[in-house]
Amino acid sequence: MAEPRKLRMGMVGGGPGAFIGPVHRIAAELDGKCELVAGAFSQSPERSREAGASFGVDPARAYANYGEMIATERTRADGIDFVVIATPNHLHLPVAVAALEAGIPVMSDKPATATYDEALELESSVRKSGLPYGLTHTYAGYAMVREARSMCAAGKLGAIRKVAVEYFQGWLSRPVETTGHKQAEWRADPERSGPGGAIGDIGTHAFHLLEYISGLQVTAINATLRTVVAGRKLDDDCSAFVRLSNGAAGTLACSQVAAGELNEVRLRIYGETGSLEWRQQDPNRLIVKWLEGPEEIHHAAAPYLSADARAVARVPPGHPEGYLEAFAVLYREFAGALMAWKDGAVNPLPSTLPGIEAGVRGMRFIDRVIASSRSERWVEF
Amino acid sequence: MAEPRKLRMGMVGGGPGAFIGPVHRIAAELDGKCELVAGAFSQSPERSREAGASFGVDPARAYANYGEMIATERTRADGIDFVVIATPNHLHLPVAVAALEAGIPVMSDKPATATYDEALELESSVRKSGLPYGLTHTYAGYAMVREARSMCAAGKLGAIRKVAVEYFQGWLSRPVETTGHKQAEWRADPERSGPGGAIGDIGTHAFHLLEYISGLQVTAINATLRTVVAGRKLDDDCSAFVRLSNGAAGTLACSQVAAGELNEVRLRIYGETGSLEWRQQDPNRLIVKWLEGPEEIHHAAAPYLSADARAVARVPPGHPEGYLEAFAVLYREFAGALMAWKDGAVNPLPSTLPGIEAGVRGMRFIDRVIASSRSERWVEF
Amino acid sequence: MAEPRKLRMGMVGGGPGAFIGPVHRIAAELDGKCELVAGAFSQSPERSREAGASFGVDPARAYANYGEMIATERTRADGIDFVVIATPNHLHLPVAVAALEAGIPVMSDKPATATYDEALELESSVRKSGLPYGLTHTYAGYAMVREARSMCAAGKLGAIRKVAVEYFQGWLSRPVETTGHKQAEWRADPERSGPGGAIGDIGTHAFHLLEYISGLQVTAINATLRTVVAGRKLDDDCSAFVRLSNGAAGTLACSQVAAGELNEVRLRIYGETGSLEWRQQDPNRLIVKWLEGPEEIHHAAAPYLSADARAVARVPPGHPEGYLEAFAVLYREFAGALMAWKDGAVNPLPSTLPGIEAGVRGMRFIDRVIASSRSERWVEF
Amino acid sequence: MAEPRKLRMGMVGGGPGAFIGPVHRIAAELDGKCELVAGAFSQSPERSREAGASFGVDPARAYANYGEMIATERTRADGIDFVVIATPNHLHLPVAVAALEAGIPVMSDKPATATYDEALELESSVRKSGLPYGLTHTYAGYAMVREARSMCAAGKLGAIRKVAVEYFQGWLSRPVETTGHKQAEWRADPERSGPGGAIGDIGTHAFHLLEYISGLQVTAINATLRTVVAGRKLDDDCSAFVRLSNGAAGTLACSQVAAGELNEVRLRIYGETGSLEWRQQDPNRLIVKWLEGPEEIHHAAAPYLSADARAVARVPPGHPEGYLEAFAVLYREFAGALMAWKDGAVNPLPSTLPGIEAGVRGMRFIDRVIASSRSERWVEF
Repeated sequence: MAEPRKLRMGMVGGGPGAFIGPVHRIAAELDGKCELVAGAFSQSPERSREAGASFGVDPARAYANYGEMIATERTRADGIDFVVIATPNHLHLPVAVAALEAGIPVMSDKPATATYDEALELESSVRKSGLPYGLTHTYAGYAMVREARSMCAAGKLGAIRKVAVEYFQGWLSRPVETTGHKQAEWRADPERSGPGGAIGDIGTHAFHLLEYISGLQVTAINATLRTVVAGRKLDDDCSAFVRLSNGAAGTLACSQVAAGELNEVRLRIYGETGSLEWRQQDPNRLIVKWLEGPEEIHHAAAPYLSADARAVARVPPGHPEGYLEAFAVLYREFAGALMAWKDGAVNPLPSTLPGIEAGVRGMRFIDRVIASSRSERWVEF
Repeated sequence: MAEPRKLRMGMVGGGPGAFIGPVHRIAAELDGKCELVAGAFSQSPERSREAGASFGVDPARAYANYGEMIATERTRADGIDFVVIATPNHLHLPVAVAALEAGIPVMSDKPATATYDEALELESSVRKSGLPYGLTHTYAGYAMVREARSMCAAGKLGAIRKVAVEYFQGWLSRPVETTGHKQAEWRADPERSGPGGAIGDIGTHAFHLLEYISGLQVTAINATLRTVVAGRKLDDDCSAFVRLSNGAAGTLACSQVAAGELNEVRLRIYGETGSLEWRQQDPNRLIVKWLEGPEEIHHAAAPYLSADARAVARVPPGHPEGYLEAFAVLYREFAGALMAWKDGAVNPLPSTLPGIEAGVRGMRFIDRVIASSRSERWVEF
Repeated sequence: MAEPRKLRMGMVGGGPGAFIGPVHRIAAELDGKCELVAGAFSQSPERSREAGASFGVDPARAYANYGEMIATERTRADGIDFVVIATPNHLHLPVAVAALEAGIPVMSDKPATATYDEALELESSVRKSGLPYGLTHTYAGYAMVREARSMCAAGKLGAIRKVAVEYFQGWLSRPVETTGHKQAEWRADPERSGPGGAIGDIGTHAFHLLEYISGLQVTAINATLRTVVAGRKLDDDCSAFVRLSNGAAGTLACSQVAAGELNEVRLRIYGETGSLEWRQQDPNRLIVKWLEGPEEIHHAAAPYLSADARAVARVPPGHPEGYLEAFAVLYREFAGALMAWKDGAVNPLPSTLPGIEAGVRGMRFIDRVIASSRSERWVEF
Repeated sequence: MAEPRKLRMGMVGGGPGAFIGPVHRIAAELDGKCELVAGAFSQSPERSREAGASFGVDPARAYANYGEMIATERTRADGIDFVVIATPNHLHLPVAVAALEAGIPVMSDKPATATYDEALELESSVRKSGLPYGLTHTYAGYAMVREARSMCAAGKLGAIRKVAVEYFQGWLSRPVETTGHKQAEWRADPERSGPGGAIGDIGTHAFHLLEYISGLQVTAINATLRTVVAGRKLDDDCSAFVRLSNGAAGTLACSQVAAGELNEVRLRIYGETGSLEWRQQDPNRLIVKWLEGPEEIHHAAAPYLSADARAVARVPPGHPEGYLEAFAVLYREFAGALMAWKDGAVNPLPSTLPGIEAGVRGMRFIDRVIASSRSERWVEF
């Protein structure tokens, strides 16, 4: 039996200056299941070609816009198998809908869309299409996040009582969006970001992790949004309490003005008999503390881990994996689902891979945080 | 010139089974400035004598109750110089007032009293007496807490934007107060603890640290109290947002049902250009992160620290000091103030030593948290 | 100008059950400069095809042995640009020589050969051929290893006085080579490993790091080899003192019977005014301690790092990179050198990429360790 | 029954400028078993009185020299119960012998004497006297050192295969002994220190820990001494291999020119099935790694620890203890032994408290290290 060919992907966004385009390329190709063959990398045709060249893409397939890419690729015998969306948020919906309507599956960067209403629209579009739609909530691809999720699901900690998630960065401590910083520019612009600043950019990651690992849903939220840097149009700092579907409580904090923090994603889960702690900057260890008995450190790739955690390890314990590998796990799972779907599977996405449902909840999160912060009260989720 | 004699102290509480009595004894005597010579260690005369013997106290000075101790000691030529209060909370006020009225200075365990109203009463009593009154907010005695405080005061981080304090324990994860656990018993009993459970026992420490280090005051609070363990009468878990006097925001969390945590006191301060992080379980290091430039670790006793931090170190850098030494710093400062007061100084307490003002604010904190949690809204502080 | 095509590589070894084959594939392809198109993955033709299929290699190019691969590929218009050697040690020399004699550059796993004599033979073969030859001393690809190297080269620590390197694993704590463990089997077999056990497998890494980072050369060695597990034919534990070319001293330790250790590569360099510490299991941080002033932590990808360190980062600070990314840095540099060589450059390998010189020194290290351990004395290097 | 009175101690050394005098005072008094009542703190009568005053010692008992102290105190009804030796090394023997000959027990700072011959002389003096003699190898008093020792003794790791101990400081990186630095001055002077520099000052601690924790004895040693700082008369850096009584091997390293290190005492023990790691700068945690199963962190004062470890904890888990508390454990044990001896016990010292045997072995260590380093070979221990 022949090894199935690599899945061909076409990227929208990710042009020169973008951080996330090359990340998607590396992550998608890392496990040898996908290859980048086409793209509408920039709204400038020239810059799109330039980016294409940097990726080794055939110049003929470096398009000036996503419409052209979709229209052309769908007619090629060797056309793309799926679209990767790596644009600012305001383009997530139109690109995704265009691809889905053309019958092309989608792997999208987060958040799913720019607004909650758009998310509902996208959800309906995905449902109608029956096509695979994946969402790159990167942290969901880390082995030890998978281990934490498995431990919660297996009840290892007893009933969950308390969850604390935070994502702190410091890079927006000054108004760098006014000084030509491309990454900061669109994130600080409501036209391109949507109504959420830090909460959209990184709060949605924290929110996703909270629900993803605990297996619980947020049912109510009490949030305080702040815009710390004068003149900034969107929030750059958020603290929130949440109530969870099992009666537990949680805190969620994110900030882009936490001077000195890099990408401090940190998560703790407290159950009746033990607790978990994970930090992205030390990703290959999961700290497990018990009410009785010694604290433990579980190491990625170790034989004592859950099947879900072991499944995503590429190297033996003690050799660190990182951000790109976590990202690649999502692509590997998406590619597997896509293959299965091509073979006729319905709803092929594994539960470990974030999809449109996670996307809608993430946009709901932004919406609810803003509502709560404005009213200074608890709001239902 | 002769070395001044040691100050004589009489302890109330701290009898058999108490954790904190021996801690006060060691801390008070550690720097050679004080000695325990009398006590009303227990409400049972027999147990008081037993405790006295374990401390090497003259049996004649192991009293059956604090009233007797105060009445007798004030008439002795070698009577006590101050009273140490190490009882459950409900006795803090009556003991302190009795001592002050007898003209005897007081060093009290925290919280200052059982209720906010009592705190106001105590404050008035302290003011009227003109006597030194110290409060053992232990963590204020750590060298690196002093360093953090100095750095904030000196503006090293720029304006403070964000503060996060937490104190997590797990030892009340089960209803141990119903199984004869003496420490848990009185803490879970509103008659002896006052209206605050975890917030009174450890939340007040977190609150004190927040204001002590940042130099800011809490002006409003939005808190959620929970009683996680069924049947418990007081809160065992709290999350709160706070607004600070300079417009900054903060979070404060405490829990005694965070299974697996021991005494996890952790504090972070974010300013415009850098941030600080300190953990009690790694107390001799202060982590300093800059918006620009490498992260730093400042070590206790190092020559590059502030004068305030260097002043409290007893051993060279790299030899760890701990909880008892921090506690002893407060006694050393109290003893120094007492000596100065005996020599005629007015208001001799150094600003580094918590006193009645901190005590009143701590009780106000408990009061405001409860009010906010009940109303599910922000309340003014 | 068209983007240069990807370099085509043919792998020898790396068949089913091998850990290192997939690692080479991922690492080589990660930066989009190379692609695996051919291989002699196993000495069994069937297993070679099986492995080829798992890599997506055209079945026609999954060869039964390396001779056939080289002979066939050199005649194809789209033949391989270089050979990757991922076999047990005893094949490193014959494969490399065969490739070089056929005019094909080589990227080889370490150690360079099975014996020191072979290394000299290979060195002469490489020299004669004038072809690029790279050696995958993985740890040399970590950003913070590059930073440490740059700091030493720039004299940031003053003259180096002391170096301590160790590589500890525990996986050979039991005689797993007798129980069908493929990885252990060939490593424990002198016919395939050469005369070095742990010193060949991991000691050479430690040795390479020592010279690579410090910029110094070992001039004498005093080593103690042990075979801790009964019945094992090769060493599984080594401790050594070394003298360095500037008069400094060092220690080098490696073990595969350090029960509980995973891949604990740890390196410390002490200079007159400061020191460095790096651990593979926390690879994105370099600890810098000064004789005067606070300890520092330098983070991968940070703007304050040396150009060499920044050059190899793919993601922003705070997003961890790991083992595969470090490995990929070597391939990226090798690919760049190969391109330059095709364009006529002589000696195109950058000094950051280990080559035949490092290979010969590594084999000399094994030879000298054995000689010293046998004589129980210092030996010249 | 009356509480036994405190034991009265007289200190030799520890005068103004000494670091270790106040440490002995605090440690001895911390558990309420001893009190400092006399001393010959300095060879200058004036400075001795000054130091006495700082300790609150009766001026009449601040002696001009140790002979006078011993002669006078032995005749007082309330004379000292034991002598504390806190002088430079060359005085350890004469002071100890004088005390023992006067029938007064001794608690001595380490190393036991200045030379190995002196140690044998002291051993004979101790034996002849039948008096308790304790040696303050501080690190032996840490709870987690006790835990490590208990785990080794109980065979928790299987047979021990490998031990690595190191003690690194940086404070002698420059010739500070030439600039009036009192602590450095006598340590760098063979007349006062004996033939060992770093090996005497801190190497003996590392050596003691190695044997104390592992329960094994060093049987042979291969050491390299260096004097890194030009003009210094004694060693300031040492690396050594050792063979142990059960056939295991070890490494021992100490340095006072490891720029940037503070008091980095680090110990690792590898057995057949697991390993231990302890660092003084993180003293309340013992890291336990298993060949199979998760890594563990054992916390001081936790209920799952051995009886020996629990016995020395003063505060609940999560409240750190440090260097002074470890030191105080030795005094507490010495005081207990002294009480028992007064009540007629023979050989009352518990095995957990270092005594003359440890002292002789420590001096033998210095002797053997120098012999090995000179001959550049293994020497029998």
